[in-house]
Amino acid sequence: MIDQPNGVFSPVLTPFHGDLSPDPERFVALCRRLIDEGCHGLVPFGTTSEANSLSIEEREGLLEALVEGGVDPALLIVGTGLAAIPDTVRLTRHAVGLGCAGVLMLPPFYYKGMSDEGLFAAYAEVIERVADERLAIYLYHIPKVSGVAISPKLIGSLRDAYPDTVIGIKDSSGDWDNTRMLLEDFPGLRVFPGSELIMLEALRLGAVGCITATANVNARGLARLYAGWEGEGADDLQEAASSVRRAVQSQAMVPALKAIVARRIKDDGWLTLRPPMTGLDENQTTALFAALDEAGF
Amino acid sequence: MIDQPNGVFSPVLTPFHGDLSPDPERFVALCRRLIDEGCHGLVPFGTTSEANSLSIEEREGLLEALVEGGVDPALLIVGTGLAAIPDTVRLTRHAVGLGCAGVLMLPPFYYKGMSDEGLFAAYAEVIERVADERLAIYLYHIPKVSGVAISPKLIGSLRDAYPDTVIGIKDSSGDWDNTRMLLEDFPGLRVFPGSELIMLEALRLGAVGCITATANVNARGLARLYAGWEGEGADDLQEAASSVRRAVQSQAMVPALKAIVARRIKDDGWLTLRPPMTGLDENQTTALFAALDEAGF
Repeated sequence: MIDQPNGVFSPVLTPFHGDLSPDPERFVALCRRLIDEGCHGLVPFGTTSEANSLSIEEREGLLEALVEGGVDPALLIVGTGLAAIPDTVRLTRHAVGLGCAGVLMLPPFYYKGMSDEGLFAAYAEVIERVADERLAIYLYHIPKVSGVAISPKLIGSLRDAYPDTVIGIKDSSGDWDNTRMLLEDFPGLRVFPGSELIMLEALRLGAVGCITATANVNARGLARLYAGWEGEGADDLQEAASSVRRAVQSQAMVPALKAIVARRIKDDGWLTLRPPMTGLDENQTTALFAALDEAGF
Repeated sequence: MIDQPNGVFSPVLTPFHGDLSPDPERFVALCRRLIDEGCHGLVPFGTTSEANSLSIEEREGLLEALVEGGVDPALLIVGTGLAAIPDTVRLTRHAVGLGCAGVLMLPPFYYKGMSDEGLFAAYAEVIERVADERLAIYLYHIPKVSGVAISPKLIGSLRDAYPDTVIGIKDSSGDWDNTRMLLEDFPGLRVFPGSELIMLEALRLGAVGCITATANVNARGLARLYAGWEGEGADDLQEAASSVRRAVQSQAMVPALKAIVARRIKDDGWLTLRPPMTGLDENQTTALFAALDEAGF
């Protein structure tokens, strides 16, 4: 395993051409800009990235473009979890082979109500097949979208069996009690909350950073919060970041973020979403920017 | 579009070798046996098939083995719906190219809470890309597993736009009111309920058959019910089929079906499931067979 980066991570948006094919040029440009603006790392192919609307080949192509485009793979935690074990293995091998710091791995997410034993077996099978000492896995707990929770029991079993491989978790439950439980009950587990609304609280209990969708548009504000979390003005920095977050999530998150990026860099090419996601209509866009104005963003 | 078969369809189980690779030999043998026992058609790669635990290449390989193994593609409705449009397009083209009667298409199932407009756009994009007059789509409504419902509004939009392509639906909602609504409100739509518990009621309202997991083990009983549904003994045939169903679903459906197949043909090779699914333990297996005995199966 390579040294793991801490701090603010952006699950980066994926741009599409008008014909819905991925746009590596805009993708690399966004990623480089986010690093310049203060992100400590990036998560290509998270939920915000419309990753599960991309084919395996499209993901591989974009990731290669990113590394060739000069983004240091040591700053990347790559989403690789798919519904089928062979697919997860393929994407994981690819990311590890490119020298990426880690992978963010959804559980197999089609079948619901599976046992912890079954989910353990799925993760174990992936780990055994990838069979690479460099592999560093962050579990991806986002039950409201994936429909499959990562339970404390599952985390415990995986940590016992693969302590040097299963090293962290992204907690996108939106439930502070769950994040606190992870921080308190699993010492040594690298916990990234999935929203900055609880960033300060989580850092104070030992979180290693935050992976948050809004880093696509507020990297500077989040980087300030991360840099200043132990200082006197931390609560103000938290409130500033939270108010931006609340304004963004007044609309559907992914189209809202794309609308903000498009406006910021004056490039309507960013407005395309791949179905089943759809863009904001005019009223929603107006409401979004009014909310952001009100938040002083 | 080729002539569409009516009747009892089995969403066929997928056998795996000990190393979890798919087993085309057992797969073809099961499919041929099910046709011999009275199934009017087969659905490779439904939910019961652990299809979403298979890679695209594995699905393609199994389907080719099936056609090469002598199963008439005109009897096949093939599951092809994946989370990402390019993947759904690829599997759909493959099935159409092999001469299969139709495809059973899940909506893109990772992102939840998408609008009907977004889901329509996803289906439309697939249809436009496949661009083949032979394409016949059955929508797959299984919201408890996929997390994404096929609403009446969505069906209406798709039927209006693609009346010769979107020709049917499998309703695995488990909700008779929904099945009845489909039969009453969408004349001409080919409706397959996803369980035989409502087969007789559905046939009486114009359903064209039934696609049910238990056809893997009770093809004869279901074929008798289908053959006799307009006769005097229909209610008894329904009750006989339903009692087998209730016994099977006293345990987790897919491992239960594999256990029954394994016992019937004395082949423990059928007991392997791919994670995240797991097999029944000894107590569960004992309880399953006791329930089946009690049902007179």
